[in-house]
Amino acid sequence: MASSGKSSSAKDISPAVIKRLPRYYRYLGELMENDIYRISSKELSQRMQVTASQIRQDLNNFGGFGQQGYGYNVEYLRNEIGKILGLDKENNLIIVGAGNIGQALANHQQFSSNGFHILGLFDVNPRLIGMTVHGIEIFDIDTLEDFIKTHDIKIAALTLPKSMAPDIAKDMVKWGIKAFWNFAPVDLNLPSSVTVENVHLAESLMTLSYRIHSLEEE
Amino acid sequence: MASSGKSSSAKDISPAVIKRLPRYYRYLGELMENDIYRISSKELSQRMQVTASQIRQDLNNFGGFGQQGYGYNVEYLRNEIGKILGLDKENNLIIVGAGNIGQALANHQQFSSNGFHILGLFDVNPRLIGMTVHGIEIFDIDTLEDFIKTHDIKIAALTLPKSMAPDIAKDMVKWGIKAFWNFAPVDLNLPSSVTVENVHLAESLMTLSYRIHSLEEE
Repeated sequence: MASSGKSSSAKDISPAVIKRLPRYYRYLGELMENDIYRISSKELSQRMQVTASQIRQDLNNFGGFGQQGYGYNVEYLRNEIGKILGLDKENNLIIVGAGNIGQALANHQQFSSNGFHILGLFDVNPRLIGMTVHGIEIFDIDTLEDFIKTHDIKIAALTLPKSMAPDIAKDMVKWGIKAFWNFAPVDLNLPSSVTVENVHLAESLMTLSYRIHSLEEE
Repeated sequence: MASSGKSSSAKDISPAVIKRLPRYYRYLGELMENDIYRISSKELSQRMQVTASQIRQDLNNFGGFGQQGYGYNVEYLRNEIGKILGLDKENNLIIVGAGNIGQALANHQQFSSNGFHILGLFDVNPRLIGMTVHGIEIFDIDTLEDFIKTHDIKIAALTLPKSMAPDIAKDMVKWGIKAFWNFAPVDLNLPSSVTVENVHLAESLMTLSYRIHSLEEE
């Protein structure tokens, strides 16, 4: 599926491998920032605290980018992983909900450096509408349908209260949204053709609370 | 683990079950908000889109709170899960890094309603120090050691740039922090006695990008 056409089919790749790819992408970027352009699977494994054999196995899924006795070409490998992740394509998104989390996402520099372009924020609050966050305008949520359709938006971050999120998400699917980055503390229950990545902050904090209290009792 | 002492040992519970507990906790809270005080595993399973047998298995880990022919007592079950998650204890935390994400977390109402008390934000930026966010003061990061020791803080949210996060985290472990809620896009590489919950936003967005582009090619 990588757009180069050289790699193997994405359909054969396990979700566990896919989940590790963004981490490879991040590490390879750090290597480039430190002017390291070639790395062996052994060195990469020490840095990432993953076994060298796992790294070789993971990267073999995509035809393997390493050369015996040379190691991996860091920039080439990062670009290929970027293509697999779809980062070489236009990734326009909108943020629905311009509260604290929505605004923090709009202010986050890292997304644009990874090729994600935030085209607009949407909210119901008249005091917010018309303001800009990091150069991105906050629009009236009533204009959402039109905006999604005219800008061909496929990805939306959802940072609305849980009481509003599920209904609006259903509408947004009708208007063309295919992927939700859901920060609302609620399950969206959408058709399986829609992909949802949940970031349930309160739940991740509870997991931490569980672990710290069970450590204390050991 | 559960302070009641009636439940089975937390050490036997698989991480997969633990990961599901916050979701049970959330759903049971929603039922209470809707004045539902009793529910069968079958009804709960339909709402949560998990099989009834998984629910029974999961909850049996904690001695099983259901009664044949009656179902689960929603409030009792929620309280018991809350105890297992340590939510009945004092959960004081600090936020290190008062940028966009740090401030958004401080503004997030949901944490205090779950028993987490944010005692302070910390930053290096002199323009931020002395300000308050949602009533929480932003302190000079130079006072962090003293604050952690005098307030007996165990949990810290880390919302610093990746260049600063790993070194400060190492110091914070020396000062007594046992658990990090890490938003910095970097691995902390801390001793195994310290627990880390990573929220790598850019990576979760990349996973979404991957899924939407591979859906397009199907």
